[in-house]
Amino acid sequence: MSDTSAQLTGVVPPLVTPLTPEYDVDTTSLARLIQYQLTGGVDGVFVLGTSGEGTFLTDEQRQVVLETTVAEVAGQVPVLAGVIDTSTARVGAHVSAALKAGVDGLVVTAPFYAATHPAEIERHFVRLASLAGDTPLYAYDIPSRAGTKLPASLVLSLAEQGVIAGVKDSSGQETSLRQLVLSRREAGLDGFAIMTGSEVTVDSSLAFGVDGVVPGLGNVDPAGYVRLFDAATAGDAAAARAEQDRLFRLFEIINVADRSRMGASSAALGAFKAGLHLLGVIDCPITAYPCIPLDEAEIAAIRPLLDRAGLH
Amino acid sequence: MSDTSAQLTGVVPPLVTPLTPEYDVDTTSLARLIQYQLTGGVDGVFVLGTSGEGTFLTDEQRQVVLETTVAEVAGQVPVLAGVIDTSTARVGAHVSAALKAGVDGLVVTAPFYAATHPAEIERHFVRLASLAGDTPLYAYDIPSRAGTKLPASLVLSLAEQGVIAGVKDSSGQETSLRQLVLSRREAGLDGFAIMTGSEVTVDSSLAFGVDGVVPGLGNVDPAGYVRLFDAATAGDAAAARAEQDRLFRLFEIINVADRSRMGASSAALGAFKAGLHLLGVIDCPITAYPCIPLDEAEIAAIRPLLDRAGLH
Amino acid sequence: MSDTSAQLTGVVPPLVTPLTPEYDVDTTSLARLIQYQLTGGVDGVFVLGTSGEGTFLTDEQRQVVLETTVAEVAGQVPVLAGVIDTSTARVGAHVSAALKAGVDGLVVTAPFYAATHPAEIERHFVRLASLAGDTPLYAYDIPSRAGTKLPASLVLSLAEQGVIAGVKDSSGQETSLRQLVLSRREAGLDGFAIMTGSEVTVDSSLAFGVDGVVPGLGNVDPAGYVRLFDAATAGDAAAARAEQDRLFRLFEIINVADRSRMGASSAALGAFKAGLHLLGVIDCPITAYPCIPLDEAEIAAIRPLLDRAGLH
Amino acid sequence: MSDTSAQLTGVVPPLVTPLTPEYDVDTTSLARLIQYQLTGGVDGVFVLGTSGEGTFLTDEQRQVVLETTVAEVAGQVPVLAGVIDTSTARVGAHVSAALKAGVDGLVVTAPFYAATHPAEIERHFVRLASLAGDTPLYAYDIPSRAGTKLPASLVLSLAEQGVIAGVKDSSGQETSLRQLVLSRREAGLDGFAIMTGSEVTVDSSLAFGVDGVVPGLGNVDPAGYVRLFDAATAGDAAAARAEQDRLFRLFEIINVADRSRMGASSAALGAFKAGLHLLGVIDCPITAYPCIPLDEAEIAAIRPLLDRAGLH
Repeated sequence: MSDTSAQLTGVVPPLVTPLTPEYDVDTTSLARLIQYQLTGGVDGVFVLGTSGEGTFLTDEQRQVVLETTVAEVAGQVPVLAGVIDTSTARVGAHVSAALKAGVDGLVVTAPFYAATHPAEIERHFVRLASLAGDTPLYAYDIPSRAGTKLPASLVLSLAEQGVIAGVKDSSGQETSLRQLVLSRREAGLDGFAIMTGSEVTVDSSLAFGVDGVVPGLGNVDPAGYVRLFDAATAGDAAAARAEQDRLFRLFEIINVADRSRMGASSAALGAFKAGLHLLGVIDCPITAYPCIPLDEAEIAAIRPLLDRAGLH
Repeated sequence: MSDTSAQLTGVVPPLVTPLTPEYDVDTTSLARLIQYQLTGGVDGVFVLGTSGEGTFLTDEQRQVVLETTVAEVAGQVPVLAGVIDTSTARVGAHVSAALKAGVDGLVVTAPFYAATHPAEIERHFVRLASLAGDTPLYAYDIPSRAGTKLPASLVLSLAEQGVIAGVKDSSGQETSLRQLVLSRREAGLDGFAIMTGSEVTVDSSLAFGVDGVVPGLGNVDPAGYVRLFDAATAGDAAAARAEQDRLFRLFEIINVADRSRMGASSAALGAFKAGLHLLGVIDCPITAYPCIPLDEAEIAAIRPLLDRAGLH
Repeated sequence: MSDTSAQLTGVVPPLVTPLTPEYDVDTTSLARLIQYQLTGGVDGVFVLGTSGEGTFLTDEQRQVVLETTVAEVAGQVPVLAGVIDTSTARVGAHVSAALKAGVDGLVVTAPFYAATHPAEIERHFVRLASLAGDTPLYAYDIPSRAGTKLPASLVLSLAEQGVIAGVKDSSGQETSLRQLVLSRREAGLDGFAIMTGSEVTVDSSLAFGVDGVVPGLGNVDPAGYVRLFDAATAGDAAAARAEQDRLFRLFEIINVADRSRMGASSAALGAFKAGLHLLGVIDCPITAYPCIPLDEAEIAAIRPLLDRAGLH
Repeated sequence: MSDTSAQLTGVVPPLVTPLTPEYDVDTTSLARLIQYQLTGGVDGVFVLGTSGEGTFLTDEQRQVVLETTVAEVAGQVPVLAGVIDTSTARVGAHVSAALKAGVDGLVVTAPFYAATHPAEIERHFVRLASLAGDTPLYAYDIPSRAGTKLPASLVLSLAEQGVIAGVKDSSGQETSLRQLVLSRREAGLDGFAIMTGSEVTVDSSLAFGVDGVVPGLGNVDPAGYVRLFDAATAGDAAAARAEQDRLFRLFEIINVADRSRMGASSAALGAFKAGLHLLGVIDCPITAYPCIPLDEAEIAAIRPLLDRAGLH
């Protein structure tokens, strides 16, 4: 286990889960993906998130991912684990399993399926934090999936209570993210980590005080995000912007698949996996059942976009 | 196991799951609730649905509910089980567990959390039907929770393929429901069951050809829904409307709780449970964690609404 | 002017506005459309509503529609006029113009474009009612266009204050509509008119107590809606349902146009106008600029649907 | 009339419309507001936009605003006019009126109330541009009000055709805004102006290539936005961020009013007007009918927020 007392920062890609054509977890490809990330210079990895198709996997498959990742990373960077499920009790079971696997941090969404109230979401996080003990809990704000936006006031309150160590903001709402950064400063909560989940506004977010990024596209180009982060923290705004612009265009791989025959998740995650497949990192680009996979023509159409971005 | 070759029809309440103050399943209260339903004349029971807080319960708790229900019902009416989870693989695990418990039907939503496409939802149902074997599968159309409306064309296609034996429509979209009824007739799919999940438009829905109702409020007043169904099928529209109007007003118990301090689920399910508690059917009105429970004043305020509806 | 003391009831189609190929109001076709409606037996006509493309027309064009309609109807049935605009002051100008033209009722939505609060919507209706004097004001509840649902409590409050004489409910929310009917009875507001704007749930709505219907499809088949209304009020539920089912299928004309190249308004209103053109009632099926018109193949594809419904 | 061949850039506040207690346009206060803006160093003014309550005003009131503004500005900076209405024909009438008043640019939204398709929105802009002649047309992308997001591809196509000279993006979607900037560069459309309508992400937007800002809050603090713009264009990111952070906190004046008794528009515009009233710029802080005005306590609560921001 890595040192978890340090604040989360930098580039922490939400790893995809490579699958075999039979829909089993492909641990060999997962190990290669992890080495690809470490070589790229990432500051941590996050498994079983939305990009990791955590909600598609059985409990047993989730455990395989956790154990493979902890073993392969071998303490070089922190391993964060998504423990995403519908309710406190169900997430609690995932927390226990993740702790047993030896992860360094837990990433928790609001309860979903049932409609909940901020006061209920607060109860959810408080109870899970007591289960997690010394392992830091991160709030995962993803209203497009969980159906509710975590109010900035709730995130701050949980931070002040010491319930959560940080937040991953995948809301796409820059104003709310900026409010969080300003309020953190005013509250003196310097150790609280604020990470953006957006692939395409990283230079802006770092400029106004966000600590790092959890980019799905970082699966395909971890080194690019590391360069972007380094340029931004070195104060070279022009270089950061140029790198961000390049990654913005690379992100267009998610638009290659035909949306009239598959969902948005399938198109985006299928593109990340196809990119990794074309780069020789993973064996099979299939997404989790029942997602429709990209066909050969769609996979082939991703190659020139990788080339344009300088990825070979 | 009851005879499952018959088409689903009539009143099939989605049972709440009584809990102890420690958030365990209260099997004694559940047994009493089942007897209350059977005495009320219901045509089936549906456990682990949205009203049953299925997504809040651990796998172990779900199994307790299934086994208790199958034992208590003892074949007098069909037992339907919700197998609600985020993906095909995860639902599949619940299907196996429910089949082992001996249920008579399985109720399945679209995958959720991840965004999916109708073609992916179709794959989801097809694979689950093959797992279910002879036990009928019912599609559960609940866009407010699953995030997507099952298109009428998809439901019909699944019916024609023999993948699903019926649908529970909790979409609240009368037009879509009516289209389904018309299309069923034109396609000659007479054995396909169409049930509404709405508490307050049952007389209308039965009048235009729906087969039955799965009313959350039926927990509290099963006999009322049975009278409504009997009046409608006997062609006594005035009696059906009067009964529906009475139940419409009883449904106002869901507005008693203070929505500024709890979610809509908590307010509605808390009201059903409070009603059952006041009627002496279940011991404790608590809803699943992290839901905020109704307070004493809110519970007391439900009593006059029960009285007005003639429930003592 | 017809007797406006009587409560609105029955079939009151929202007339389309026939246009010339140059986008002028085609008063000759409008007169023919009105005669077609009167021959069909309608209880009133409603011009400059959503179906009437009122918000597309200039002030001068609106006035032409009003004057042509009042003259052609000649007091045989009430003429209702939409006075739809963004704010109280702007609607007020339309109210003055409509009163000058001699209409029998005014149909008013919530303010739109700017976000408003129910208390502000109340002020809007109160001021407009004082402008309207003795001419009855009807609330037009169309959240899909005005961006806000009129709360049932607000509609009832305005009814009790005598501000509005009725409501046209185009919300598609059966539960809210039914609540309004129940509350009207309990409040003793028998003279308050509740009309549904849904084409496809008329038998149900009449069965639970709604007074009439304002069906866009009634442009094409006024006599069908009159038969449906007569059957329902005579207590012949089977005949009403059969008529509704036939009209449900006729309503599929709105799905003929290619939605990938035009908006939903264009497809629906274009279909109504194409139907009227094929039936010889109006000369040109064009919709208001900038709407894309149906092409010849789309217009031709509407003919068999008219035939199937028995319209020649 | 100012030189309109130059590209729009810098700070162009969307002016509120000061009203008297009787809801007439207060031309004296409007003139003072304009002088306050010019003294603050703004690069243009935009009247009759959303902040200007254009959709609340009658045609006559709109004309008073246009003529007062053109006269008071006297060619020192460009005057942009909102010509916001539901359809092409209705907007066309406003275009004619605005041209007669001598404005330097026209700001046009998508048609609204009726649902439209991008191909129809394109027809709308093309026809209006031909009406506008040499006066530049700007697209106003405000999906929260107009109900539809202008696709980046449509904006670019209109730019390439020379139909529009720029866009005001009030969508709050940073990703879409950034895509527009990138695509503009790739298409070589350097003269096309991209302005953000967001008050709180200006430093970020300028850093990635946006040309300027149209901030509602600029009514209250034009000089602050000018300092922010100047710092950003001078490459002093830290100073730009500090100014943006100060303005972010000042923007909290929109949260002072009680949202349980008024709409969001009323609260925000009421706060801008109250701020201007407290600063002695306008006489009466009332918003347009039927908006509920801020009460005395709410107005008083804005004073300390002005003080904190250094505005006296």
